[in-house]
Amino acid sequence: MAEQSIVKVLNGREVWDEITSRGFSNVLSVYFIASTKISTIPGISLAGVNSELTLYTPALDVEYLTLGKPKSLPIVPTTPDGVPTPALLTRVAIQLSGIPYLVVNCGSYIDPQIPHVDIPGKAVGGRIDVEDSLTPEAVSKLFDGSRTLGKMLGSESSLLVVGESMPGGTTSAMAIMEALGYRAVGRVSSASPSNPHDLKREIFESAVKRVGKRLPLVEPLEVVSHFGDPLHISITGFLAGALERGARVILAGGTQMSAVLALARALGIRFGGRVAIGTTRWIVEDRSSNLLGLVKDIYPDVPVAYADVNFLSVRHRGLRAYEEGYVKEGVGAGGTLIVSALLRNINMEELLKAVQEEYERVVSLAQES
Amino acid sequence: MAEQSIVKVLNGREVWDEITSRGFSNVLSVYFIASTKISTIPGISLAGVNSELTLYTPALDVEYLTLGKPKSLPIVPTTPDGVPTPALLTRVAIQLSGIPYLVVNCGSYIDPQIPHVDIPGKAVGGRIDVEDSLTPEAVSKLFDGSRTLGKMLGSESSLLVVGESMPGGTTSAMAIMEALGYRAVGRVSSASPSNPHDLKREIFESAVKRVGKRLPLVEPLEVVSHFGDPLHISITGFLAGALERGARVILAGGTQMSAVLALARALGIRFGGRVAIGTTRWIVEDRSSNLLGLVKDIYPDVPVAYADVNFLSVRHRGLRAYEEGYVKEGVGAGGTLIVSALLRNINMEELLKAVQEEYERVVSLAQES
Repeated sequence: MAEQSIVKVLNGREVWDEITSRGFSNVLSVYFIASTKISTIPGISLAGVNSELTLYTPALDVEYLTLGKPKSLPIVPTTPDGVPTPALLTRVAIQLSGIPYLVVNCGSYIDPQIPHVDIPGKAVGGRIDVEDSLTPEAVSKLFDGSRTLGKMLGSESSLLVVGESMPGGTTSAMAIMEALGYRAVGRVSSASPSNPHDLKREIFESAVKRVGKRLPLVEPLEVVSHFGDPLHISITGFLAGALERGARVILAGGTQMSAVLALARALGIRFGGRVAIGTTRWIVEDRSSNLLGLVKDIYPDVPVAYADVNFLSVRHRGLRAYEEGYVKEGVGAGGTLIVSALLRNINMEELLKAVQEEYERVVSLAQES
Repeated sequence: MAEQSIVKVLNGREVWDEITSRGFSNVLSVYFIASTKISTIPGISLAGVNSELTLYTPALDVEYLTLGKPKSLPIVPTTPDGVPTPALLTRVAIQLSGIPYLVVNCGSYIDPQIPHVDIPGKAVGGRIDVEDSLTPEAVSKLFDGSRTLGKMLGSESSLLVVGESMPGGTTSAMAIMEALGYRAVGRVSSASPSNPHDLKREIFESAVKRVGKRLPLVEPLEVVSHFGDPLHISITGFLAGALERGARVILAGGTQMSAVLALARALGIRFGGRVAIGTTRWIVEDRSSNLLGLVKDIYPDVPVAYADVNFLSVRHRGLRAYEEGYVKEGVGAGGTLIVSALLRNINMEELLKAVQEEYERVVSLAQES
């Protein structure tokens, strides 16, 4: 009567087994939030009612995650069509397994109204087509501060899950990887079923023209300053600090996390078989992007695992939209589901029941307001 | 050849064994920092080069804990006579055992220059002899925000260690307990070998006269607003949230933690045998205070454990001062040592060696600057 696990591993099974062996005991999820003005470019991000509101999404996501509804704006954590934030999955996973978690602000447009860690130097990222993302000083401070936090929270018995919320992030992730010399155009994912690859490429091309330097650049902090955002360098710093303390880390996200691998590699951070990516089935089955291809180009021994969850049988249209290519991943949904399932054998039926109940609760908030 | 453990239990052995049984796996230390202007009253606090500098001590303590030296001021983490902050013990304990930790600011006079959680509503506490400590709104916000953090970080498998740094804290702890109806005058400890009980009593009497209400008060948030400080109510909120999630909590501190017990009792927070106090031998052997008496009056089934560490054989005078009644406890030193010893059997010899090496390093910082 062995239950089918919702955890599937795409590659690097041995490393994955090592990372998730019960040597770990201290589990903590850490959700980084930040904003980049790239998300305000029309057509780039669906993660907000309109382009300007995408700047608020990260704070609203973690408020909803923690309090059950957003606090800074009287808004429902779904699109106008009723498609819910991926934080819904994260919230359900945390409720089912009791994973402790923390929120880290490295550059959210608004301060979330829940307790969180602020990284010194936090700043909203610029629109890289027309301006630098961050000053070199801010990039350094974000890396150093996050590294310190990683050292505080990491230990040899730690399994740290690191998620993110930053609309526009696949574009800057793509730009970071390209600027470091990896082929990333056309390979990053999107919260939309029609991935705006051309627009992302144009933004990057404008940035390249604006910066006027020959690519690839060798200095990762310079790459982030010109082409990046506050999020990926902060997660890279956190990863560096946690690894220094002997922790194991699951980067919980889609193609954005390959930009973290690229930065870590460029900075000479050694993984020692202690880093994996954990994501969702919607990312690994996405034909408009190629997470595994990116990982294999950048850090081939990093395992990619995914939560094999589907909403095909769910009656709510807002959730079924995930099967049509909407949202896919975010706020560490996939990785949090995976680690929840490792801690406490969650089966598909139980999960879908909890997801639908939470969705109904969230939609009823809309009717109240 | 059974090694003598440095962990000793004064009372409630069965509850203690339950709390520290290996059912726990997620260990996290959380250090709350705050300031109260009570510490600026001459003669109240030794935790700073002079009375005004006591306001900076909490931030400097956690900077030293994390970075190995204070950052906000070019100062050495010792008194002018070379007596080190108790954070030295906390730092050594964390280094020996690798406990992950977090810093929470609920009202530090300056923002520590390390990653930390800010509690919404954080504020420096007033000098209760002449003014209220906090507005009732701030007290509520601190409780609620800290409770939310406790819910984020607590889980059924958690063992949370909660320490503090706030000079002047035994005075406000005493005032909180008295205002709630417990006999606390003359029973709280001090970082000085000559405990200024009379001065503490006078401050409380001035506060009682100023407030002009008949004691005891039944409303704990009102007690904190008139007689308290930002720290104890925040720790109480964190405790409440963590217990709601099923966590076990070791309150790592001296007589201040009995004020947390008093607030928790008045707020009707149920402990369910999951709360203990962990402190140092210097506190439990202190004849100028009575931690066990306070605990027995307030919450008799809360175990009190202590780290049975002594510096009698140490050659550095600054450390031996602990044996003469200086410092005694702070920044969760006792509780952190205890949990470190539970995680990894630390013997006295190893500990003293590490403490002396760290002390020598810290003193050499003085010579550099």
